[in-house]
Order: sequence, then C-alpha cells, then structure tokens
Amino acid sequence: MKIKNDGEYSELKTVQLEDRGEYFLKLIDQRELPFKLKIIETQSYKQAISWITDMAVRGAPAIGATGAYCVVLAVQELEDCDIETIAKEIIAARPTAKDLHTFVDKMLKYIRSGHNSLKDIAIYAITLAQESEDECRLIGEVSEHLIEDGDGILTHCNAGALATVDYGTALSPIRLAHAKGKKFKVYVDETRPRQQGRLTAWELLQEGIDHVIIADNAAGYYIQKGKIQIVITGCDRVLKDGTATNKIGTLEKALVAKYYGVPFYIAMPWTTFDPSIDTEEDIPIEFRSEDEVLFVNSAGERQRIFALGSRAENPAFDSTPAELISGYITKDGILTQSQLLDYYEKYQS
Amino acid sequence: MKIKNDGEYSELKTVQLEDRGEYFLKLIDQRELPFKLKIIETQSYKQAISWITDMAVRGAPAIGATGAYCVVLAVQELEDCDIETIAKEIIAARPTAKDLHTFVDKMLKYIRSGHNSLKDIAIYAITLAQESEDECRLIGEVSEHLIEDGDGILTHCNAGALATVDYGTALSPIRLAHAKGKKFKVYVDETRPRQQGRLTAWELLQEGIDHVIIADNAAGYYIQKGKIQIVITGCDRVLKDGTATNKIGTLEKALVAKYYGVPFYIAMPWTTFDPSIDTEEDIPIEFRSEDEVLFVNSAGERQRIFALGSRAENPAFDSTPAELISGYITKDGILTQSQLLDYYEKYQS
Repeated sequence: MKIKNDGEYSELKTVQLEDRGEYFLKLIDQRELPFKLKIIETQSYKQAISWITDMAVRGAPAIGATGAYCVVLAVQELEDCDIETIAKEIIAARPTAKDLHTFVDKMLKYIRSGHNSLKDIAIYAITLAQESEDECRLIGEVSEHLIEDGDGILTHCNAGALATVDYGTALSPIRLAHAKGKKFKVYVDETRPRQQGRLTAWELLQEGIDHVIIADNAAGYYIQKGKIQIVITGCDRVLKDGTATNKIGTLEKALVAKYYGVPFYIAMPWTTFDPSIDTEEDIPIEFRSEDEVLFVNSAGERQRIFALGSRAENPAFDSTPAELISGYITKDGILTQSQLLDYYEKYQS
Repeated sequence: MKIKNDGEYSELKTVQLEDRGEYFLKLIDQRELPFKLKIIETQSYKQAISWITDMAVRGAPAIGATGAYCVVLAVQELEDCDIETIAKEIIAARPTAKDLHTFVDKMLKYIRSGHNSLKDIAIYAITLAQESEDECRLIGEVSEHLIEDGDGILTHCNAGALATVDYGTALSPIRLAHAKGKKFKVYVDETRPRQQGRLTAWELLQEGIDHVIIADNAAGYYIQKGKIQIVITGCDRVLKDGTATNKIGTLEKALVAKYYGVPFYIAMPWTTFDPSIDTEEDIPIEFRSEDEVLFVNSAGERQRIFALGSRAENPAFDSTPAELISGYITKDGILTQSQLLDYYEKYQS
C-alpha cells in the first residue's frame, strides 16, 4: 500500500513476517489510525492473538494472514508446541470471519503432513499471505470495469489494504479504476461503533481518491437521491446459500440499494467462502463489548452512558441474503450465487 | 416529564415560558444530556433562535413551541418589532421540520388579526404549547394498544418528551403502555451523528423502562433475528403523498422493517403535516456542519479527521415513502396514507 508522508510515497504492508535470524510479526496498529501511523511488532504468539482480539489488526484476510503468522510464532516460541491447541486459541480470537479458520487450518494441515522445520513453516505462512495479496489484486482486475466515470460508490467498513495483506477487497477495484484515470467519488460510511470508515478514508487519502465520510444513517439518503451508482463491500464469511456475513450495517445498505435498484456487490477472497454453513441462522455472530457503543469516544474520553444506567448491545456482524447481492467479486470473475459452489469446488481441486 | 434525581421524582417540561412580571424562556439544555441536567433561560429572542440552531432544543414539536415563544420574546424585547421579518428569522433556524413554520405562522396570524398586547400574545403562545402537549398525550392513548407484552420495539432518534413540550410522540405510546404494566424492551438507535438516542435512553431510564442502546447499523440485525415486533419513530414533516421526512437513518430502518414484515409507524402531531409539499423531491433537507461527523466526539476532544484531509457531508434528514409506513399515529387515531388528507381538512376546519 502507498503511504504518503511529507509528500513522499513509501510502500507498506498491513501485516508481514520479518526474518532477522528470528521471526518477527509486524503490523500497522489500526487502533491508532487515522491519527498516527504506528508499526508494532512482536515475537509472542499470545501478544499477536490479543492484537487480533483488540483489533490492532482487523479485516478478514488481514486477520487470516496474522493467524498463520501466529502459528509460526508459537512454533518458534514454545519448546513443546501443541499445535492443535494453539490453533483453537488463535481461531477463538475472532469467531465470525472465515479467513482466520481457513488460514490456520491450512497451517495445521501443512504441519500435520510432516513439515516440522520452523523455516518451512514460516515460508509456507508467507506464501499463504502472498497468495492472499495476489488474490486481492485479481479481485480488482476482474471488477474495475464496474466503475464508470462520474460514479458515486458507497462502501461500508474498511475492506481496503488495511483489511488484507495488501490492495484490499472492496477497495481493490476502486484503486485500479483510479489508477486507470477514472474520476468518481467514494461515499465512506463511518461504520459505527468502531468507525472503520475512517481507515477507508485514510487509505483513499493516501492515493488521492475523491471521497467523503458520511454517517451510516445517511447512506439511504444518498442512494435515494441518485448520488450512488454502485455499492461494494467486503465480507467476513460467505455461506453455502450465498448469504454474506459482514460488518454490522451491511444488511441495511444492501436493502436500500435493492429498493432503489442500485447494484450491490460483495468482494470476496475464496478464504471467506464457507459452504459448511447452510444459512445465517447457523453462523456465530460475535458480540463485542458494550463499551464500543457507550463510550463517548473510542479514544480519549472515559465518560460512559451506562455509568448513568443505560446498557448497550453490540453485535459486530450481520448477514445479507443472496437475493440482495448483485454479484460476488472473486479472483475468478464476478459470480452469481449459483456459480459460487461450482467455482469453489474447481478452486479447491 | 418525570425526572429522577437522588431517588426522588420531579416534574419538568422541555420548554416553557415563565411569567415573572417579564417573560422568560426556559429550556432543558439537551446538548448537556444525558450527562448533566441543565436548565437554561433567556429573554433574548436571538439567543433563543441560536439555541434552536445549536440544538440546545430539538425535536419538531419542541422547536415549534420554542419558535412561538421566540415571537413573544421579540415582541417584549423590541420597541419597533417587525414581526414578519422576525418570523422569517425564526423559521430559518431549522429548515426541515414543519412544526417550526406551523407554530410561527399561527403566531403571525394571531398578531395580524389585531392582537397587539404582549400578554395576549404570550397567553396565545402558551395555549399553542399546551395544545401540543395534549396532542402528544392523545397520540399515546390511541396507539398504546399496538404494544404487547414481550415486544421488542425499535425507535430512532429522540421523539420523546424532550422532542416535544411533554410526553413525546413515538415515546408517548411506550410511556402509556409501561404505565399500564406491560413488559417490553426498547431498542434505542444511537442516531449518529448527534446521538439523540442517548436522550431517548435517558428518558426511558427516568421512567424505569427496559431498554438497550444499539449502533444504528445494528437495527437490521435485530429485526432479522426476530427481536423487534414494532418500529415507531417521530417525524419532522409529513408530505401530501404521505412521505415522512425524519431524522437521517429513518429510511433505512423502514426498509429493513418492510423486508422482514415488521410494522413501521410514524407518530405525528398535525403540526407536522404539510400538504403544500407533494413529494420528497420538493422538501428542503438541512445539511449540518461536517464537524458533527468528523469530530472524534461531540463533547470534549477537538481532534478532527478532516484535519488529516478527509471531508464529510452531513444531511440531517431523509424521507421515507408512504408504502413503507404501516400507519400514521395521530391524536385522531392511526390513519392510513389515504386518510391523512381527509382528517387534516377536518382538523383544520
């Protein structure tokens, strides 16, 4: 990802494993953005897990890659590493996104098949992360044609480079359309309660892409007024029936888009697809702390509403039915719900 | 409205005109709630107008009554009071809500018809406010039967006592159902960017009504999961075709309710009805400062996103089409869209 600093551009990845004789996990600390670009690093797998839970790193593919690197750190750190237990511990850090499972499962399979050397395990994890990055670039390549000059584009949460190893999912076609010289405007939902829209705005700012932040409540207004021609979001898990579980609020945006006839696309790496779950009733939805809703802000001020007696509930994801989704943007093209399973089986083989 | 203070209840109105030889406007300062209950007062009509703009007082009927009292203050304050100009100045304080126009127009008509004495004008304004309060109570009486034991109720923004002279509109049936001993749970949208949901939570807390605050994005989740049986909101203006213009985000909630077959009601005093406007395309939507979206919080911290380069847009209202509205709760009963005009004409005569 391009980072603009004092007018100079540099390249940075959201998550990476560095080999300096020993392995270090390096992350952009997303809790500090957009106010401060801070890189954090650790050799402790437990520290890395806590960063997933605390959302120092977030976004399905980014936490997937971080999960794979957690396995490497554990193997490096622990004399007697019970990798099956460690894997469960890592997966429990965020229960809803499929990628974390997928990446950690792949690491497990690799180790179970007899690969015990730390170096091999590290190289395999790095390969998985590189594949994820390549897949994100392809997602952009197959879909940037959906964006036309003059379009308004709505996106929810952050499905950008920060949510992945690099490029992003929903932001990948937006980046590529911009690189081709297309002119458009991105409407960025602020995405309460964690306000990941600010991360999206920060990314767009780095690349000089025209955008504006809006309250989540305002997406309906802009769609109704004809300002938005296409909605693209990422996803945390896509179920067998095409249901897309994604950041809380995605369902509302999809419903407004459907009502006003605006196409609604999900950008998805295959690591997100989970045909083992049939419908939304079976997917575990993570509830996060009520503090995320009740604190006056997520940064400084400590005064809380529920000190006054009111409580909050804070589901982190919701599920959008397939009939509201115009297409699933994958590295293999823009698929319909009925094509998903076919392509997945082809991809898996 | 009941206010709980150190375990003791007292009665307080959101807005009132006090006669202490001279007239004083007294308001609950809603910018300080829910953290502090502060009463502010003034004799300056310009100060009062600025309180409408700054949202020290908000909610369509409450700013309507405040508008009428502004007229009284202007007549008291100014030697040569050009009441037509003053009226325009007051109405411009918040352009979207109809009530402000309606109350000020009624004051104008009263004065134009030859009533020049300050006392008469003040008594007339107080009468309008009392009628508004009575109407809110009736709105609750005709609709509390919609709420059943065990219901989940979603409301958006604050259409409570704080938004009116007393009782509230959407919260009026909720108050009355609670007074009858019904048990239910209110899901309170936080209502970004101004977070008026906290005002609703504060009111419900005073009365001991079970409630929980949720992010606006989460309303879809709770409706999808069957936790919500009825949605009730207030409105700022209802157009001839039944379109309800209300706090930004109302449209999204109405669409989710429609999709999942949950009834969606608008609670409306007649002062909100505006048959002079045909459709949503003709209604002026107030855009408020981007600071409301961009500030990390609305209270303390001054750090802003757009100091970093990103801007925001902040429409304060959106318009919900009649086909998404199950009924309009008025003092004359729960009406369909086709009944609205008939009843309005009857009411006006």
